[in-house]
Amino acid sequence: MESLTWVDGALEIIDQTQLPDHSLTLRLTSVADLREAIATLRLRGAPALGLAGAWGTALACREAGSPLDSRYPERVRGLALELARARPTAVNLAWGVEQVLASLSGLEPGRWTAEACVTAARLHEADRAAGRAMSAAGADLLHAGGRYLTHCNAGPLATSGVGTALGVLLEGHRRGLDFEVLVDETRPLLQGARLTTLELQQAGIRVRLITDSMAAFAMQRLGVDGVFIGADRIALNGDTANKIGSYGLALAAKAHGVPFRVVAPLSTIDGQCPDGRAIPIEERDAAELLGYGPLRWAPAGTAAWNPAFDVVPAELIQDIVTEQGLLSAPFPGAIRKALAEPAIRTRTVQGVQDEV
Amino acid sequence: MESLTWVDGALEIIDQTQLPDHSLTLRLTSVADLREAIATLRLRGAPALGLAGAWGTALACREAGSPLDSRYPERVRGLALELARARPTAVNLAWGVEQVLASLSGLEPGRWTAEACVTAARLHEADRAAGRAMSAAGADLLHAGGRYLTHCNAGPLATSGVGTALGVLLEGHRRGLDFEVLVDETRPLLQGARLTTLELQQAGIRVRLITDSMAAFAMQRLGVDGVFIGADRIALNGDTANKIGSYGLALAAKAHGVPFRVVAPLSTIDGQCPDGRAIPIEERDAAELLGYGPLRWAPAGTAAWNPAFDVVPAELIQDIVTEQGLLSAPFPGAIRKALAEPAIRTRTVQGVQDEV
Repeated sequence: MESLTWVDGALEIIDQTQLPDHSLTLRLTSVADLREAIATLRLRGAPALGLAGAWGTALACREAGSPLDSRYPERVRGLALELARARPTAVNLAWGVEQVLASLSGLEPGRWTAEACVTAARLHEADRAAGRAMSAAGADLLHAGGRYLTHCNAGPLATSGVGTALGVLLEGHRRGLDFEVLVDETRPLLQGARLTTLELQQAGIRVRLITDSMAAFAMQRLGVDGVFIGADRIALNGDTANKIGSYGLALAAKAHGVPFRVVAPLSTIDGQCPDGRAIPIEERDAAELLGYGPLRWAPAGTAAWNPAFDVVPAELIQDIVTEQGLLSAPFPGAIRKALAEPAIRTRTVQGVQDEV
Repeated sequence: MESLTWVDGALEIIDQTQLPDHSLTLRLTSVADLREAIATLRLRGAPALGLAGAWGTALACREAGSPLDSRYPERVRGLALELARARPTAVNLAWGVEQVLASLSGLEPGRWTAEACVTAARLHEADRAAGRAMSAAGADLLHAGGRYLTHCNAGPLATSGVGTALGVLLEGHRRGLDFEVLVDETRPLLQGARLTTLELQQAGIRVRLITDSMAAFAMQRLGVDGVFIGADRIALNGDTANKIGSYGLALAAKAHGVPFRVVAPLSTIDGQCPDGRAIPIEERDAAELLGYGPLRWAPAGTAAWNPAFDVVPAELIQDIVTEQGLLSAPFPGAIRKALAEPAIRTRTVQGVQDEV
């Protein structure tokens, strides 16, 4: 399954809200369609959102009217920023927009659409390569007979390739290691129960589904050899925003001496963000907590608090697995050094982020 | 709402699996009916299960055939033991059976049914009184403007009166304190989302529903002044079995310096159980994790691990609120002393438990 593909001038995505029951491909031809798909989580996962930002900027170039019009650059930027605001926490979305806008700088507007597609395609391929590199680095941390735990979905559906946290597990399996994976169901939108189980089982990996509330007890009673999660935004000190529940999971891992690892491309690091307190946390509609899909189980009108992400403090993280290998504590230095590497250069996204 | 009532020779219960949408009363006239209602969680909550064990033993006396038959006592005991085995973790169920069987000792079988009803009614009233006493002791720990968090359902539906953990909150509200309660939804069976929200909102208490995975982040971002939970079995060292998720919640509370309190009658203490490792943990059907009610969201055939309870180590518990007041660390001594009090005497349940 490919989470998103550029086909004949449109972005084709799998509607992830319909999985695992229906594999439905949507063809998105406008920024507004793409924005809706992101806001409703039809397309999700931080690295995939980065590519959506990039391809969406190409869509913006196409639908902003005539490049001969003097207001064309402003219109492109306006549409792209609107897209970047679709979800606030994953830095990758704004990063993808910024990468493409930066590549247009100095070019005559008539060439923008074509150039945006070239840049987006390059980022798309870089994301695949980053996935392969992260998976290889992370799989070295696995051992046969182990039991690993993951939260939410950080697999192929969340990226363009093998995924981040799941990429590590898929690569370990490909190397012939036999291990079990405990999958947190990940309320409220159940990405673990619906998507991660699907991706791991299709690969032939042994899986047991648990509720999010069982993870600590699993560490106590079953034993867990490592936790791997993805990330939506990493601050310069290593604090990591990821799907709600990651923080409690990290506290439980700490209490049991279980290594807790974040797997994410360097594009997830926000060069403008000093620490976790500066990461904006998306709060979603209370209705998501009152039931699921067509089913409502809480009394009508019940109030809810629904943060979509939380922040894992750097001191609870053992390593951050990136396409440049493992970053380990103390993180501020390791992160600064990684960002300075020219090989796979990450950029700050100040231009777009300041306005988002 | 009364979770269970003895009416004209039958046990009437509210079917808690139908709440909050339907308030359906079931009239149970046989041990088999009651056993089914307990196994499927139509009737649940440790103190309520204690009363179900007691009233169920009265049903056993009535349906065991003629008291003139020499095999009658053995049949009563067989039926009662079958009932006590319906769920393994809550000690109260076996305790209720044992209390009634003990009260029949030495009586001629022809008087057993009547005597069993008298004993069950006495336990029923004692449970109400214990609820009032626990609520009063616990409410002294609340303050106006506070924010408290609870897990699963430990209210009137789980007992015969005001409840345990929710009894504390209800009493605080009755005293005029204004505070907010965060309610863990409590996957997989959603007792928090369905029952606790209902009971607290009906009382006029401000409630916000959260997923179990949000509790740690709520402590970090919103601030929480105390956690109150019920208990299904307390070991002599203070280790406490309660609904799955309690352990992770206690770890998060410890990390944030939030007082974590267990509210339970002394009948929840298992005089035969030295520590948490000796508490049997019920594992339920994997199907409960693949969806909810008529809805299935995980891929068909997905394996799951589904422990219904976990164990909170005594060192994570600040106090145990009982009908005799607060028991505080070091728990082994405090518990031994409480059990020695003649006022509301708890019994060991060795007779029934050994066979269960």
